[in-house]
Amino acid sequence: MNVEIISVGSEILLGNILNTNTRFLSRELAVLGYNVYYHTTVGDNPDRLEEALKTARNRADIIILCGGLGPTDDDITKEIVARYLNKKPVRDEKSLEHIENYFQQMGKKMPQRNAKQAYFPENARILPNYFGTAPGCLIEEKGTVYILLPGPLRELQPMFENQVEPYLKSKQKGIIKSTILRITGLGESTVADLLRTEIEEQTNPTLALYSKEFDVIARITARADDRKTAGRLIDELKEKVKKQLGNAVYAEGDTMLEEVVADLLMTHKLSIATAESCTGGLIAGRLINYPGISNVFREGFITYSYEAKTKRLGVQKTTLKKYGAVSREVVQEMVEGLLRQSGADVGLAVTGIAGPQGGTPEKPVGLVWTAVSVRGETLCEKYIFNGDRQTVRRKTTMTVLNTLRKKLLTFS
Amino acid sequence: MNVEIISVGSEILLGNILNTNTRFLSRELAVLGYNVYYHTTVGDNPDRLEEALKTARNRADIIILCGGLGPTDDDITKEIVARYLNKKPVRDEKSLEHIENYFQQMGKKMPQRNAKQAYFPENARILPNYFGTAPGCLIEEKGTVYILLPGPLRELQPMFENQVEPYLKSKQKGIIKSTILRITGLGESTVADLLRTEIEEQTNPTLALYSKEFDVIARITARADDRKTAGRLIDELKEKVKKQLGNAVYAEGDTMLEEVVADLLMTHKLSIATAESCTGGLIAGRLINYPGISNVFREGFITYSYEAKTKRLGVQKTTLKKYGAVSREVVQEMVEGLLRQSGADVGLAVTGIAGPQGGTPEKPVGLVWTAVSVRGETLCEKYIFNGDRQTVRRKTTMTVLNTLRKKLLTFS
Repeated sequence: MNVEIISVGSEILLGNILNTNTRFLSRELAVLGYNVYYHTTVGDNPDRLEEALKTARNRADIIILCGGLGPTDDDITKEIVARYLNKKPVRDEKSLEHIENYFQQMGKKMPQRNAKQAYFPENARILPNYFGTAPGCLIEEKGTVYILLPGPLRELQPMFENQVEPYLKSKQKGIIKSTILRITGLGESTVADLLRTEIEEQTNPTLALYSKEFDVIARITARADDRKTAGRLIDELKEKVKKQLGNAVYAEGDTMLEEVVADLLMTHKLSIATAESCTGGLIAGRLINYPGISNVFREGFITYSYEAKTKRLGVQKTTLKKYGAVSREVVQEMVEGLLRQSGADVGLAVTGIAGPQGGTPEKPVGLVWTAVSVRGETLCEKYIFNGDRQTVRRKTTMTVLNTLRKKLLTFS
Repeated sequence: MNVEIISVGSEILLGNILNTNTRFLSRELAVLGYNVYYHTTVGDNPDRLEEALKTARNRADIIILCGGLGPTDDDITKEIVARYLNKKPVRDEKSLEHIENYFQQMGKKMPQRNAKQAYFPENARILPNYFGTAPGCLIEEKGTVYILLPGPLRELQPMFENQVEPYLKSKQKGIIKSTILRITGLGESTVADLLRTEIEEQTNPTLALYSKEFDVIARITARADDRKTAGRLIDELKEKVKKQLGNAVYAEGDTMLEEVVADLLMTHKLSIATAESCTGGLIAGRLINYPGISNVFREGFITYSYEAKTKRLGVQKTTLKKYGAVSREVVQEMVEGLLRQSGADVGLAVTGIAGPQGGTPEKPVGLVWTAVSVRGETLCEKYIFNGDRQTVRRKTTMTVLNTLRKKLLTFS
């Protein structure tokens, strides 16, 4: 069955707020096996809301409306749905009492305008709001279901989970399960090439790719009569994807790259230290995202200046002078000095030109040298990254963590 | 003139990503004086996208489509717009060259499928993409304008600001000017209370508040016949706002907090160094966002472990043992050691419990000690921040930079 989500509120059209309701509802509906074909946002305008309802009725079985259930004159959702369906507004005494109590608990008297929130199109099933004054409602009319929910996510979410989800589940047979694989070091189009067969053959489970920051995400979704069959379908496709992409797949679900790296370090009992120039702390900052990192993270040096490179890491002044700060020779001396100073098993060092100034024809903005040293074995690599200063620095961070991950994977 | 924004992408309908493009565009369009009456989201489905185009053409003068310009078969926006407008797809040699160069710079050959990104509906005005491989385009056809933009916000935003905004401005009579003031250290509702009169009295210019990360943004927008009058209107309200909020207003426009701090350091010829525990490089990372920082940034230490605090900064083992790593005494010794080691004029040190583990009733998760030392004068402060690990670390970072800013403002 198809669902359309209509968000009602001029504040969304003005860009004053981010539409997080639609994302929440879409994700939940996908899991429940409903197809969401359209999202629509419309302002607090009676005619345009009615037009949106008309359009939606022609293409959806279920219409979920969010927002516009408040006490002010701008809040028109229930009124327009009633008008559109030619239904009288009827007062619900229980809702009125609930709203009055809500104010009473705060030691206030209910403002008269809030009485409006206790009126519903006749024959609507009322969805009480335990986190605010705006109750929702559900109307089944000529084969279409209209579900009206309050605008604030902290009211909408529990109402959906506790009252709407059971209703939607009861209308659906079979279940849907999905998982995501996280891929790094390959662009979206390269991944699409490698998975061409899997993408072309997809029916159930389906396979979708999208980019997120510097990762590619592959989402596998299966429909089946039961959870076990869905799980098996997912596992089969997952294995195929992993076989095609090898160790470019770094994690499943919400796991982050730094978490994978931290886990590998802990598994192999390896301590780590960092020496950063252009990234200026971002690599250490990523690693320290991971709560358990204190077991292996020794220390970090931010050696952005020549002086700090020399004083803290023992980089030779002659090396800096002869090859420049962004060179294989300097990054090599940085990582060697780092390991000497920290006594760590693993050292990460980077030096680069993040821009926007400082580039030359031989050494353009985006040039970065990285060094990854694991138990005495050092790999120095050169990159030229596109993008602005922040992008170059973030790409450098993710790249060096990924290089370390791949190196650690070779350990048995 | 009325605008409809159509977001194209099944990943949005599945709830995999939050639709931040629409919010960005809506806000910009409001400032430019365009009415946005509808947002629509549709998946990577040819027929449904065409239906969305039809619906939009009946109700909008300008249709902005976001997403679906990538290299894969799922990316269909240009193809469907061409089909809908009955226009042949034509290859643009300059775009092709640009895409090939993009790959070349990364030392790669362009995958064949990316050639698709160089095709456009005939007579389209091409909008080059300087941050990715997907160029956008603009088509004027029978009184309707179609503007196609790439999906990732970091590509869409500069393309809109640099190429679409001037076009939209040229179609509008009278002018609209706006500016933003950045406020830190106060919550949105406190700012709203302080600016109650200014907000209630607003007609032209208008004053809107919104939160962004840990800042509050006040946007002032004026409409006038000419730039000078609009500028004067803005300046008047700006002064009122600044008078109400004092030095909580840290910048105007796109200036970031680290930029203000860096400028103040340079003005007063003060060098800086950092010693970070729980933030693990984020403070240095912020400062190094600023391209000119190398003039004043001496070095940074990431002393997450007891050992690093002792070895690098000379924190006494007895102090750590007696007061614990998160204490006034330790942060004081950290900053003193940092200044001794680095010889910098300004030292920033932080130590805290970012969580999720490690909290106790006396020292809960979110407890942070900061030290800001400027020319021998040290201010140690204690905070208890709400939120998850990342939030605590980011709040700590912004707070310590803001404390330094306020201290430097007292220098004449």
